[in-house]
Amino acid sequence: MPALEALRARLAELGDLSALGRLGSWDQQVMMPRDGAAARANQLAALDRLTHGLATADEVGEWLDELEADGNELDDLDRDVLRIARRDWDRQRRVPGELVGEQSQAAAEGQVAWRSAREEADFAAFAPALRRNVELAQSYAACFPQTAHPYDALLDDYDFGLRSDRIQTLFARLAEGLTPLIESAPQGADRLAALNIPVKTQQAAVRGTLRRIGVSDAGWRVDVSAHPFSESLSQRDTRITTRYDNRGLDSITGAIHEFGHALYERQIAPELERTNLGGGASMSIHESQSKLWENHVGCSASFAPVIAGELTAAGYALEPDDLFAALTQVRPSLIRVSADQVTYPLHIVLRFELESALIGGELSVEDLPAAWNDGMRRLLGVEVPDDGGGVLQDIHWSAGLFGYFPSYALGTVIAAQLWQQLELDLGSQEDALRRAEVGEIRDWLRERIHRYGRRLDTEPLVEQATGRGIDAEPFLAHAAALVRG
Amino acid sequence: MPALEALRARLAELGDLSALGRLGSWDQQVMMPRDGAAARANQLAALDRLTHGLATADEVGEWLDELEADGNELDDLDRDVLRIARRDWDRQRRVPGELVGEQSQAAAEGQVAWRSAREEADFAAFAPALRRNVELAQSYAACFPQTAHPYDALLDDYDFGLRSDRIQTLFARLAEGLTPLIESAPQGADRLAALNIPVKTQQAAVRGTLRRIGVSDAGWRVDVSAHPFSESLSQRDTRITTRYDNRGLDSITGAIHEFGHALYERQIAPELERTNLGGGASMSIHESQSKLWENHVGCSASFAPVIAGELTAAGYALEPDDLFAALTQVRPSLIRVSADQVTYPLHIVLRFELESALIGGELSVEDLPAAWNDGMRRLLGVEVPDDGGGVLQDIHWSAGLFGYFPSYALGTVIAAQLWQQLELDLGSQEDALRRAEVGEIRDWLRERIHRYGRRLDTEPLVEQATGRGIDAEPFLAHAAALVRG
Repeated sequence: MPALEALRARLAELGDLSALGRLGSWDQQVMMPRDGAAARANQLAALDRLTHGLATADEVGEWLDELEADGNELDDLDRDVLRIARRDWDRQRRVPGELVGEQSQAAAEGQVAWRSAREEADFAAFAPALRRNVELAQSYAACFPQTAHPYDALLDDYDFGLRSDRIQTLFARLAEGLTPLIESAPQGADRLAALNIPVKTQQAAVRGTLRRIGVSDAGWRVDVSAHPFSESLSQRDTRITTRYDNRGLDSITGAIHEFGHALYERQIAPELERTNLGGGASMSIHESQSKLWENHVGCSASFAPVIAGELTAAGYALEPDDLFAALTQVRPSLIRVSADQVTYPLHIVLRFELESALIGGELSVEDLPAAWNDGMRRLLGVEVPDDGGGVLQDIHWSAGLFGYFPSYALGTVIAAQLWQQLELDLGSQEDALRRAEVGEIRDWLRERIHRYGRRLDTEPLVEQATGRGIDAEPFLAHAAALVRG
Repeated sequence: MPALEALRARLAELGDLSALGRLGSWDQQVMMPRDGAAARANQLAALDRLTHGLATADEVGEWLDELEADGNELDDLDRDVLRIARRDWDRQRRVPGELVGEQSQAAAEGQVAWRSAREEADFAAFAPALRRNVELAQSYAACFPQTAHPYDALLDDYDFGLRSDRIQTLFARLAEGLTPLIESAPQGADRLAALNIPVKTQQAAVRGTLRRIGVSDAGWRVDVSAHPFSESLSQRDTRITTRYDNRGLDSITGAIHEFGHALYERQIAPELERTNLGGGASMSIHESQSKLWENHVGCSASFAPVIAGELTAAGYALEPDDLFAALTQVRPSLIRVSADQVTYPLHIVLRFELESALIGGELSVEDLPAAWNDGMRRLLGVEVPDDGGGVLQDIHWSAGLFGYFPSYALGTVIAAQLWQQLELDLGSQEDALRRAEVGEIRDWLRERIHRYGRRLDTEPLVEQATGRGIDAEPFLAHAAALVRG
């Protein structure tokens, strides 16, 4: 079957080349001297143009046609390879190259405008660039006229098959459940900010904690970057980063979060490597993996003795109970990236409301700051002092990323649902976590989630793992337990 | 002139993509966890196939034809772009893709066979793989029937235009001049091995010394790798490595050597960047730059107070005179990579004699070890105890690299010739070196060598800089001065 061989060879080539692109991007954020930036942008753009051309070439369409004609000769795996290849090819071919170019241009310019506008807390200076990004996202959505809402076309790039009305229902339930919980939470000073752990101690504890959950030198690197991230250069070459700042334990919980992303990529079935199925299913599922490890392992009462032990061994004595109390304190605040696990989803609910209204044309860019400030008051009871700490805080919209935010909250919700199922299947993990024995958790995740790669989309994958679609209740129960303390 | 635009766009694309290949290779040697090796090999092979296809495509030949037809409309720079593009395209098109594939296969297998054969000091176990590499190199050479000696076709890949009879003459003069010098050198224990400088001290001295000659965080990285090397990811993103072992000061002199390579790439005229001219002229010229900084700056009596000062500041007191004596001790030995500057070229003379005879068919693989041992006795007066410390010591032949070795000695010779000219032009650098003031040296090198990139080949470039072709006498005079002490 030469069309199958040709298609698989092209997909392997694209996988290999895109890994070099990920290396370029990892290096840029972790290793590159700053004077290398301009040349690196050229290098990555050249690779993008080339892989885009290889992915969308006419001959790929011919192979797909041929394989679809003899589809019954394919085995299960190749049927999935073909199905996803068709979907990706069709989606990419629908978008004119000129629009793609305009979008990257507008994204680059948008980020420049955003950086200075945020510094000056001057939304008006950013509005024209944002308007341009919104218009281009609308044009992009218009390439997919079959979706019910233009926002759904954007969602498909991050979470194929999820629809905005489904998210709306889930997020309404989150808001309804979380708002009274948060109101009932005890008030108090920021416990994390009160910790003052020397960077060297944090570094030792990050190394020690990661080693205990399975990070080894043979297949991992752990480095530092301005924004923590995880990059999989192959199934056996994993790079995660964290950062060390003054706020308590973000270095450790951030590293555990990135570990969750990374473990996912490492546990995809080996036969999917170098095919189009060898990556994570979606942004929400990816985020569910990082959040599962962050919220349900790293920040659990049972695991607190492990982290506290690593900190103590590195010279900073901390009681597990105090550590757990700091890690799980509920405290409404302005900034998404430093929000606690209970208030965090409401930051996302707000962004989803606003960006789907922007894309749908129901909200104008000029009305956005007021809508933001109203939403913060309504959802979190927080007054926004200025746009720098408000609507200008995130980079996403400046880079034309609309439809991305929901995955952060969906990931949190799915993580709680998976954890509930995992403990139903395996029994309580409390004792195992106290001893940092996470082998069974890793195996369960491999079997239920990781090994599928892209073979199942978000909601079918959750159904397959838990017997039902995405469900907000396990997270609400988890949140309620945290607030009750 | 659309053919010119198309050609330049293709060359820029190839430059950008090959930079990502260099990043992949740098990462592999410096950063990559060891489990990443197999996937990285696939990634780099995919990029190689792709860039080879883009470089040798039919349309490139059409652009070249068209531009050659209207050549008189081109400015000087574009004429050089065209001339080198034609040369590269013709050379690559002459070699069948199948042969290229067989060569990389044989090189990969050869290195595996070599590693275990070297460990066992068992040449017979390596001979079949070496024979295969020699035969393939002969087939490769046969693709260029216009050269007088098949070895010349191989030389052209490293030093275009240099001929084996020219090298033979130069190397005969080196052997004639160096052998009596070495015999007259005072005997004594290894002074470098007697130094015992803690790694942390060496690290501080490497950092300090490099900073004083122009390495800054904005555009450089200095890391550690098993074999020191330099990689230019762009003109403003330079990566050099060194290694820390027990033998005295190799970490510092090795870092200065790599600095010389790196500075060359950084000082190529900016207008050559992202063209086919934006790299070093040849292997010999590249090596002349590293050797100039290593031999004539780093190991000079004048610079010794700078390095000694850095070591002393880091806690290891060393007198500049003792440092200089250790760095310039002449001591015939078995192993090329740890040889001193005076005996070093004779290791290369031997390899050149043997590999040109292998390729010319005048020496068989089975007779190689005896020829090696004879040569070591004749040239250096050294008895080879076993093949592990003899004919099996270098990786090059196992990887099919024939024609590469001469550049090491030619670089040493050209370095001395350039240094002589530099001091004729600028006056003695002794005072400047004592203060680590190397700005004038950098500027002279930029003007005379670096800025040309690939616009001049090895010997024309040397002529342009010094008024004559490659000349062994300045190096012999330098060596004689070192032996006299």
